[in-house]
Amino acid sequence: MAEKKLGAQTVKFKNPPSIIAGGTIVGPKEGEGPLRDYFDMILIDDTYGEKSWEKAESKMFQDAVNLALKKANLKISDIDYLLGGDLLNQIISANFAARQLNVPHFGLYGACSTMTEGLTLGAMLIDGGYADYVIAATSSHFSTAERQFRYPLEQGIQRPFTSQWTVTGAGATILASTGEGPYITHATTGKVVDLGMKDANNMGAAMAPAAADTIITHFKDTGFTIEDYDLIMTGDMGRVGRDILLELLYKEGFDIADKYKDCGIEIFYESQDVHSGGSGAACSAVVLNGWLLSQIRNGVYKKVLFMATGALLSPTSTYQGESIPGIAHAITISTILS
Amino acid sequence: MAEKKLGAQTVKFKNPPSIIAGGTIVGPKEGEGPLRDYFDMILIDDTYGEKSWEKAESKMFQDAVNLALKKANLKISDIDYLLGGDLLNQIISANFAARQLNVPHFGLYGACSTMTEGLTLGAMLIDGGYADYVIAATSSHFSTAERQFRYPLEQGIQRPFTSQWTVTGAGATILASTGEGPYITHATTGKVVDLGMKDANNMGAAMAPAAADTIITHFKDTGFTIEDYDLIMTGDMGRVGRDILLELLYKEGFDIADKYKDCGIEIFYESQDVHSGGSGAACSAVVLNGWLLSQIRNGVYKKVLFMATGALLSPTSTYQGESIPGIAHAITISTILS
Repeated sequence: MAEKKLGAQTVKFKNPPSIIAGGTIVGPKEGEGPLRDYFDMILIDDTYGEKSWEKAESKMFQDAVNLALKKANLKISDIDYLLGGDLLNQIISANFAARQLNVPHFGLYGACSTMTEGLTLGAMLIDGGYADYVIAATSSHFSTAERQFRYPLEQGIQRPFTSQWTVTGAGATILASTGEGPYITHATTGKVVDLGMKDANNMGAAMAPAAADTIITHFKDTGFTIEDYDLIMTGDMGRVGRDILLELLYKEGFDIADKYKDCGIEIFYESQDVHSGGSGAACSAVVLNGWLLSQIRNGVYKKVLFMATGALLSPTSTYQGESIPGIAHAITISTILS
Repeated sequence: MAEKKLGAQTVKFKNPPSIIAGGTIVGPKEGEGPLRDYFDMILIDDTYGEKSWEKAESKMFQDAVNLALKKANLKISDIDYLLGGDLLNQIISANFAARQLNVPHFGLYGACSTMTEGLTLGAMLIDGGYADYVIAATSSHFSTAERQFRYPLEQGIQRPFTSQWTVTGAGATILASTGEGPYITHATTGKVVDLGMKDANNMGAAMAPAAADTIITHFKDTGFTIEDYDLIMTGDMGRVGRDILLELLYKEGFDIADKYKDCGIEIFYESQDVHSGGSGAACSAVVLNGWLLSQIRNGVYKKVLFMATGALLSPTSTYQGESIPGIAHAITISTILS
């Protein structure tokens, strides 16, 4: 029986898994942003010494995992499962990293929602009694994403102001069955939501309805209020998506503006010319595993609703006239076990 | 603590989930094959009335889920989670189907191993106390896969004898916390294995080492012997992959030839000119949810080791000179709870 289920789409963990370490690696542009002091490693060259950006991305994925392992003082053989994915076709960054890591592997695809998809499933695997240690990881790379989803970089296409800048980086979180926290206490799994948005240069607008849906469902399922949280943070809504999300929530009676941050807005200075903000699977991954875990460990935040958000388009679906579905998975990260 | 873990890569479920229904839909060619009587629906036109093969594939995915729901006498609102993926870039078949189905969704990418990846995670979600009903589903389509992974169909490229024929179809399994079985009692999750095979027209050879690795690990972890099983079945090794797999296992002391079948070999007649056999994520999905569940329900097999196998390549990784990693996830399906 589903004794850990709470409401329609949420679970409450019985023995909440502990976040014991996070590893992060970012590209040069992210290394010039406001959160630069919180990343474990900053590349000076986004090819990372590899012959292609795709190989560089896979190497970042692998090294984010290795950085997290080192911090946790664990070996990869201590890890029961890797749960990972990325934005590339057939998630080659994650799969080729998993080949080098030699660990039981579940490949995921949730676009930019992959970080919390992996953390949700990872927490379920630990609390369910199947694992003592799991790693959830994801990556993205500006240059691999641009040429796969949009245009060849050499073409120098002008980017509209609604567009976002794919974060170059990778983040990995190690969850454990025992530890001193912070803990993942709840997880609200999203549905695919699509209000008919078709502009592939406006991901924020495409994802906002899914983000609003998951946040509202989370509050309904758990009985938590906005006051219960110190921070509500989304993955990569950007400035355009943030405004739509806050408005959608306000109309439903949830005024979260005072508690709200978005990884995509935090990771770059406005002067870095990224238009609406950062995006990509790594955006939420490096902000969570870099800046946010540090803030939580330093006592700045005690209870956070963290939600990565994904736009589930492909170039093929766009060419065939489809709109852009979104999805968002939320987890509660808390320093206290209630 | 990971009290349900058995050995290095296996879990033993405490309250093994019951397979309560399977839904299948296949294309015209599969409908002329030896297993045609076991499928719920056979298309007479592989566009399924849609404007593109990709849209047709997503519709098949959705209808496989609906067929399974109907057999189980359930509504989609009874389902706690959908776990699904497919072979297309950004798994658009699964994601666009999930949009229509309106259910909490975990997107997976395990190439042709997706069916058992979803069943493993789905079983963990039920046995872990998070769900009473989950659906694991996957799809593939000859025409979407060929043009994405290989050549435009219009080009009429000659196919080498090692090549396999991507199955057009979709399969969905409903797992429940209670039921009369068959049950998923164990799951052995694979690692990514790559022995350096580079021929994208010989998937069987690329996947055989991963398949052998998971089978051997399963026997070591569980203490089961070949005699404990009535049938050991792989997803889509094809004739070339089968021969390599049987040889790899024989060298390690496991002679499974008498108990062994492969979905890719069973689904087509040799006279259907598919060379090494069928492949694709749907290959294992429709054979499991069609033929195999029927055989188990009729008492032909009582205990089956079922393992979908995936080749984790992408055209980009191949162009960049990478070899083809494989992965295989095995589950034990049993009519008896030991």
